[in-house]
Amino acid sequence: MSQSPLALFVDHQFTSPYAMSVYVSLREKDIPYVTERLDLNAQQHQQTAYRHQSLTARVPTLVHEGFTLSESSAISEYLEEVFAPPAYAAVYPQDVQLRARARQIQAWLRSDLMPIRTERGTDTVFIQPTATPLSAAALQAAEKLFRVVEQLLPAQASHLFGNWCIADTDLALMLNRLVMNGDAVPERLKIYATQQWQRPSVQRWVQEQRT
Amino acid sequence: MSQSPLALFVDHQFTSPYAMSVYVSLREKDIPYVTERLDLNAQQHQQTAYRHQSLTARVPTLVHEGFTLSESSAISEYLEEVFAPPAYAAVYPQDVQLRARARQIQAWLRSDLMPIRTERGTDTVFIQPTATPLSAAALQAAEKLFRVVEQLLPAQASHLFGNWCIADTDLALMLNRLVMNGDAVPERLKIYATQQWQRPSVQRWVQEQRT
Ligand SMILES: [Ca+2]
Ligand SMILES: [Ca+2]
Ligand SMILES: [Ca+2]
Ligand SMILES: [Ca+2]
Repeated sequence: MSQSPLALFVDHQFTSPYAMSVYVSLREKDIPYVTERLDLNAQQHQQTAYRHQSLTARVPTLVHEGFTLSESSAISEYLEEVFAPPAYAAVYPQDVQLRARARQIQAWLRSDLMPIRTERGTDTVFIQPTATPLSAAALQAAEKLFRVVEQLLPAQASHLFGNWCIADTDLALMLNRLVMNGDAVPERLKIYATQQWQRPSVQRWVQEQRT
Repeated sequence: MSQSPLALFVDHQFTSPYAMSVYVSLREKDIPYVTERLDLNAQQHQQTAYRHQSLTARVPTLVHEGFTLSESSAISEYLEEVFAPPAYAAVYPQDVQLRARARQIQAWLRSDLMPIRTERGTDTVFIQPTATPLSAAALQAAEKLFRVVEQLLPAQASHLFGNWCIADTDLALMLNRLVMNGDAVPERLKIYATQQWQRPSVQRWVQEQRT
């Protein structure tokens, strides 16, 4: 495996939940990389060179030996294939069914629960909480989130699938959109999300300097 | 490999683009399965038994030997692992980078271009076209879609990555939301989408009886 450093394009405020997901995957695998920060407010992601690399003008984008790739779940899958376990730490479960479930959770968190994602933007998690109450639609989405996690997370478990995987981090972020804004969250899920947040790879992201 | 039939839960009108995606994967792999139709208007997907199976009350859901799985991209990945090439037809590219790109396209189509998805719902593709013009936001999303496909699709190519993969079908559906409603689409992309639509596995879905 070549040791040339990878590059990861992230938003300059370190708030993108999808950039965070890939950042955590890279840290877990302990792969050397450099962070490239794009100022989304200044439309740096819309500049031609980046648009060409990312195709879709979104963050994150990974650059690995000239190959550029966007969409966080696709990037973590790519990292798992190129920097594969056991030589590198696993970010997905090894069991076929558990890996499928982890993919389901990742896809679901990226395409549902929109009222939570809108009313509890990640700036309220990483920069400044909000005091605005949740709308009825967001409360309904929260109920759905809680129902799914209650069904998925075994009693006494610290992780969804025995060992940590990247879906734990993604799910903990969704829960922490509520926890960190003082919204009601069932105690067991709050403990899960809070413990997940203590993971060193996650704390590295949380403690990045935000300008 | 056990020959017990799989079950695929779809919407009863055969309009979900995500149900279609899995349906096509199953057809391409030539795996025996039964279709279970849920009337979403009658909230059949919210019934307790289905909610428990699908976790998230969404279609499609695959049932394979007691294992239930939702989210179309996760299901196609699971099918690719359990009914793997070369014994079964491939639905993802074999090359690591091309497979990553296919995953990027699938994830992108499921999380962006919302104005197209809203204003050109799949009922306008499979049941009845609309005459309502696209909004400015939808036209902007269409420009983005065209730019990405122009960059991805090689000249003279019938498929994104040499051979067909499931991302071709997903992308063709997104383009056909416009083509089939008479919206302006660059000729090369229109030909690509129209040719993809002729694929037998896709035509099986198109020709399903809609009540
Ligand atoms: Ca830099
Ligand atoms: Ca298993
Ligand atoms: Ca049936
Ligand atoms: Ca290659």
